Amino acid sequence: MNDSVIHIGIFGATGYTGAELVRWLARHRRAHIVFAHSESNAGAKLSDVLPVPFDLPLVAADDAPLHKVDVVFSCLPHGASASMCQRALEAGARVIDLSADFRLRSTSAYAQWYAHEHPAPHLLAEAVYGLPERYRTRIRNARLVANPGCYPTSIVLGVLPLLEAEALAEPLVIADSKSGVSGAGRKPTLSTHFVEVNESLAPYNIGHVHRHVPEIEQELSAVCGSAVKVWFSPHLLPISRGMLSMIYVRLTPEASCDHWQQRYAQRYAEEPFVRVLPQGQISTIAHAAHTNYAVISVHHVADLPGCLQIVSCIDNLVKGASGQAIQNMNLMFGFDETEGLQ
Amino acid sequence: MNDSVIHIGIFGATGYTGAELVRWLARHRRAHIVFAHSESNAGAKLSDVLPVPFDLPLVAADDAPLHKVDVVFSCLPHGASASMCQRALEAGARVIDLSADFRLRSTSAYAQWYAHEHPAPHLLAEAVYGLPERYRTRIRNARLVANPGCYPTSIVLGVLPLLEAEALAEPLVIADSKSGVSGAGRKPTLSTHFVEVNESLAPYNIGHVHRHVPEIEQELSAVCGSAVKVWFSPHLLPISRGMLSMIYVRLTPEASCDHWQQRYAQRYAEEPFVRVLPQGQISTIAHAAHTNYAVISVHHVADLPGCLQIVSCIDNLVKGASGQAIQNMNLMFGFDETEGLQ
Amino acid sequence: MNDSVIHIGIFGATGYTGAELVRWLARHRRAHIVFAHSESNAGAKLSDVLPVPFDLPLVAADDAPLHKVDVVFSCLPHGASASMCQRALEAGARVIDLSADFRLRSTSAYAQWYAHEHPAPHLLAEAVYGLPERYRTRIRNARLVANPGCYPTSIVLGVLPLLEAEALAEPLVIADSKSGVSGAGRKPTLSTHFVEVNESLAPYNIGHVHRHVPEIEQELSAVCGSAVKVWFSPHLLPISRGMLSMIYVRLTPEASCDHWQQRYAQRYAEEPFVRVLPQGQISTIAHAAHTNYAVISVHHVADLPGCLQIVSCIDNLVKGASGQAIQNMNLMFGFDETEGLQ
Amino acid sequence: MNDSVIHIGIFGATGYTGAELVRWLARHRRAHIVFAHSESNAGAKLSDVLPVPFDLPLVAADDAPLHKVDVVFSCLPHGASASMCQRALEAGARVIDLSADFRLRSTSAYAQWYAHEHPAPHLLAEAVYGLPERYRTRIRNARLVANPGCYPTSIVLGVLPLLEAEALAEPLVIADSKSGVSGAGRKPTLSTHFVEVNESLAPYNIGHVHRHVPEIEQELSAVCGSAVKVWFSPHLLPISRGMLSMIYVRLTPEASCDHWQQRYAQRYAEEPFVRVLPQGQISTIAHAAHTNYAVISVHHVADLPGCLQIVSCIDNLVKGASGQAIQNMNLMFGFDETEGLQ
Repeated sequence: MNDSVIHIGIFGATGYTGAELVRWLARHRRAHIVFAHSESNAGAKLSDVLPVPFDLPLVAADDAPLHKVDVVFSCLPHGASASMCQRALEAGARVIDLSADFRLRSTSAYAQWYAHEHPAPHLLAEAVYGLPERYRTRIRNARLVANPGCYPTSIVLGVLPLLEAEALAEPLVIADSKSGVSGAGRKPTLSTHFVEVNESLAPYNIGHVHRHVPEIEQELSAVCGSAVKVWFSPHLLPISRGMLSMIYVRLTPEASCDHWQQRYAQRYAEEPFVRVLPQGQISTIAHAAHTNYAVISVHHVADLPGCLQIVSCIDNLVKGASGQAIQNMNLMFGFDETEGLQ
Repeated sequence: MNDSVIHIGIFGATGYTGAELVRWLARHRRAHIVFAHSESNAGAKLSDVLPVPFDLPLVAADDAPLHKVDVVFSCLPHGASASMCQRALEAGARVIDLSADFRLRSTSAYAQWYAHEHPAPHLLAEAVYGLPERYRTRIRNARLVANPGCYPTSIVLGVLPLLEAEALAEPLVIADSKSGVSGAGRKPTLSTHFVEVNESLAPYNIGHVHRHVPEIEQELSAVCGSAVKVWFSPHLLPISRGMLSMIYVRLTPEASCDHWQQRYAQRYAEEPFVRVLPQGQISTIAHAAHTNYAVISVHHVADLPGCLQIVSCIDNLVKGASGQAIQNMNLMFGFDETEGLQ
Repeated sequence: MNDSVIHIGIFGATGYTGAELVRWLARHRRAHIVFAHSESNAGAKLSDVLPVPFDLPLVAADDAPLHKVDVVFSCLPHGASASMCQRALEAGARVIDLSADFRLRSTSAYAQWYAHEHPAPHLLAEAVYGLPERYRTRIRNARLVANPGCYPTSIVLGVLPLLEAEALAEPLVIADSKSGVSGAGRKPTLSTHFVEVNESLAPYNIGHVHRHVPEIEQELSAVCGSAVKVWFSPHLLPISRGMLSMIYVRLTPEASCDHWQQRYAQRYAEEPFVRVLPQGQISTIAHAAHTNYAVISVHHVADLPGCLQIVSCIDNLVKGASGQAIQNMNLMFGFDETEGLQ
Repeated sequence: MNDSVIHIGIFGATGYTGAELVRWLARHRRAHIVFAHSESNAGAKLSDVLPVPFDLPLVAADDAPLHKVDVVFSCLPHGASASMCQRALEAGARVIDLSADFRLRSTSAYAQWYAHEHPAPHLLAEAVYGLPERYRTRIRNARLVANPGCYPTSIVLGVLPLLEAEALAEPLVIADSKSGVSGAGRKPTLSTHFVEVNESLAPYNIGHVHRHVPEIEQELSAVCGSAVKVWFSPHLLPISRGMLSMIYVRLTPEASCDHWQQRYAQRYAEEPFVRVLPQGQISTIAHAAHTNYAVISVHHVADLPGCLQIVSCIDNLVKGASGQAIQNMNLMFGFDETEGLQ
């Protein structure tokens, strides 16, 4: 196991995922942050911009010493992220991109859903989708990892054992998902104003139009080997962090509901960051918040034959973003997969 | 229209629905509260027990002057409520019961779901289910109204136009519902402790086992004339009040999704307390909180033929309890249906 | 008592105070809204902009029919408000200004604290400070009412009986005040972003520099007839609405703490919107939220002779803004002072 | 520096401070939990009782292997805690008591404020008050550490540099403190019910009667060498964790306000867990939440000569309880003081 120290650069360090990355890396025994980037706050310290105890100086992109780092995390918005990732790769660093830029394998799907051409299509072929529970081996050797979206992480992990068992009676998964507000980013908008969010619950981008739909369907279909659709309804919760997906599926008639909890437990027994709750316990956001775990519970549905429901919770900033990014870094550099993440 | 004043008694005035009832009745020009009951706080004033500006004295049940009131609201728990309703009826009052005791028409279903025999089965035949949008005429003449549950109100109103149009492709409605904590009552429990609820989201009684399931299925089936099932998943939200049901249905293939928003708007055009939002707006809990409105939006689902989703929001304490109870009272006594409820 | 209907115009109807005004006026039996203004949303309806059930059309300032209204409420920001108030007065309407523009009697203090010259100094002499508990008679006859700030309302009402009794041992009041986020307005900023506010508590403008300081000191000094200072510390609470001021004062040694609760109760006995809690109860924001009441409790301090502390709570949007504005309107037009406000 | 592993026992592991202790110890490289105690949940695992990923078995007190541990943390309530601490000491373990039992040096003060005789008065003489910033040397050698209360920690650290400089003009500190709900414990009560707490702010035990008053005054007076009083007003905030004390003091006239920020910065320069913010920044609960830091800011008060105000924030569960307890353990066992606490 690697016991050296690696040198790290972060693009977009002053957003919520960037700050969360700094927070977790501070506990990682093999991580040394060489630079933290913020274009609008260059010259200030991270602790001037956020209520955190890290006096990291912030640098502009042009001043980022890319040649001095082993790995770059990009927490920039899609579109802007791809070109910075390309620069980092060209300087010899490995890259973990937390944006959506390298998640979709199809450039036409990317252009359709993100409304602009892909900024670096030549890199797509080598990008590895950074879900360790599916692609662990490929991640170890990747030069460029596309860190999964938060909703896709919770939903794909929530149905993976079913898909692998070819148990779906029809190629459709209904996912009613609810996310904390940090998922919407730190830029002030009316939809993230405290008074608008508080004491409410707001569905948004419902009706099969959210940008995570093609990402989820790509990954579900990859497992099945044939097209699987997701009927996906995101909601904005009045909490800061955490995400819950309530998943509704129908299984082939002969598949008994009774043993799925055990199947899930077996499938994830060796996974360091997936917990399957014992029968009778229900996963809640509190189970996952401030941790890198996906916490899953599986539920029989009385009197509705063939119906099964799964609750899948993560912290959108940790397993849904920065924690999973560090898990990928641990794999890429030969560290213990759980280093810095407990 | 009635311009007299009616005399009112309230059983269970110090819970959340009781207090909400007092709050709204204070604005009603024809309502005079004769007594407010609380067994455990008898002798105190309502303002000693709750942070409200009402100095109403609280009386024990045996001291409640039933013969002096025209109508009694019961906010007692199920089981306890039925016998007090019976006493009120025998004293000559009309009764609006906010508990579940008179909602199910079948005594065996009641015994199965509530785990005890029905306390007053002889009264079930005359009880009217107090959903004005379905039973307005019968409510006007009722002696005993069973005020609907909060989840059933949001779900039944959310699919009524579809059921009346016989548009369901299969007899199943999926309802993913989220409720504020006041729905769980004022008795302190670990599951309503601030720290347990806050910054989380907790599904509970999922898997077709919540007590509102038979009530919802009874009413959906009554509309259709045949059995309709509900796959119902309640969640506890970290907010005080309000409820959102995200409803997933499949329609017969020939039914176009496009015109359902208009059908809903037409169906509820004359309803004083149902708002159907224009296309492109999504109903949120903020739309309904602190009002007696059900606020509904209807949504096309791209690329998933036959699929339709509906968002139905209410305030669980108002349209889901005390406001609807006053709406029923207004009907029973010939007042303007909106009196005191704007 | 006036039983006619008055015609009302509202400038700035789509902010939190504007929307709250519409909400309360909808229950007022003598109020008819003739126009609601929003420059940026002109042409839309109020229900398109806010989750409210009011389909009021919104007009630009130049289209506002000022000659058709009896009274104008201005919910515009300071600076912008004064000139619109002037136009309304010139058109013959009476005006209630919810901004700070007419609260300070000194134009130099205004210029110092608000960093620009007063826009309409010739109107200051006739402006009446709209605190009914102090200036009820003058409000009845006013053409222009300066509706008090939220912090000043909670603090001035919290110490009025002490000042009138000349009981302060030194001319200093310490007020540690905490406000819900709606007080910061609806414009999105980082300091009102949900994630920044939630699960935190943030003091701001501490150290005798908040703009409400001169307003509070003006009113305290006016009662005393000599200068009184306020050591005022505002905090942003993670709630939508409501405000609590914890007030620390020292009394002349001979004044016993014991009877101040009674003195407060007597002073406010005839006030329809000030509640003084009985001894042993502590005022909380829940006592005042969604009501037009100031709720005050007075507390002995054991073993610290001469020390007294007072808790004064209001809803910043109601008694601290729109409710008090309607209370002033009721006085100006001869309605029952409580009309529409229960 | 010690690089061995120490063996740990925890009494009262299923409350909020107990669970927080387990969470932080899981990251500590020298800590091994030998037993976790819960009388009411003995036989279950910690993960059955709380939404945490720790499968620790819970044991009854009589089954706790006291002879196998180097140190015991007691998270039991006052009264019950002292006798368990005594048993642990007799078995040869060192003890860190998070209850109030060994904080007051006077048995008569204890009896007066806690309403029962001290359960183990013979141990008081050797108990060390576990505030490292004051008693670091004595803590290193202590057999029994009395871990400070949360309010006292925030207030004493907030004024320590002033007291050490003998700068108070009068022996009185006003502390307006606000705490998250976890400080009230996990036992369900009406005052911790979500709906009662949410969207409110509730002062409690005001008027110099809270049990932390004698603890605060003991420590302030010990620094000064003469009696100092605290006028202390706690409030319950609608957040889960975190605490802010706004402190008002008057300094001797000759002491300039201007340089206190620098004095604080110097005093705490070597302290690993006290941050003094630069001038112009204000400490908030977000600065301290989920960390072991006390975050302090010092503020000039314009136009009020001699007045100074200090904001002191901690996380009540970390620096105010379990984190500080681990900091004390690190001192007692010769570990790096920050081990496990970053």
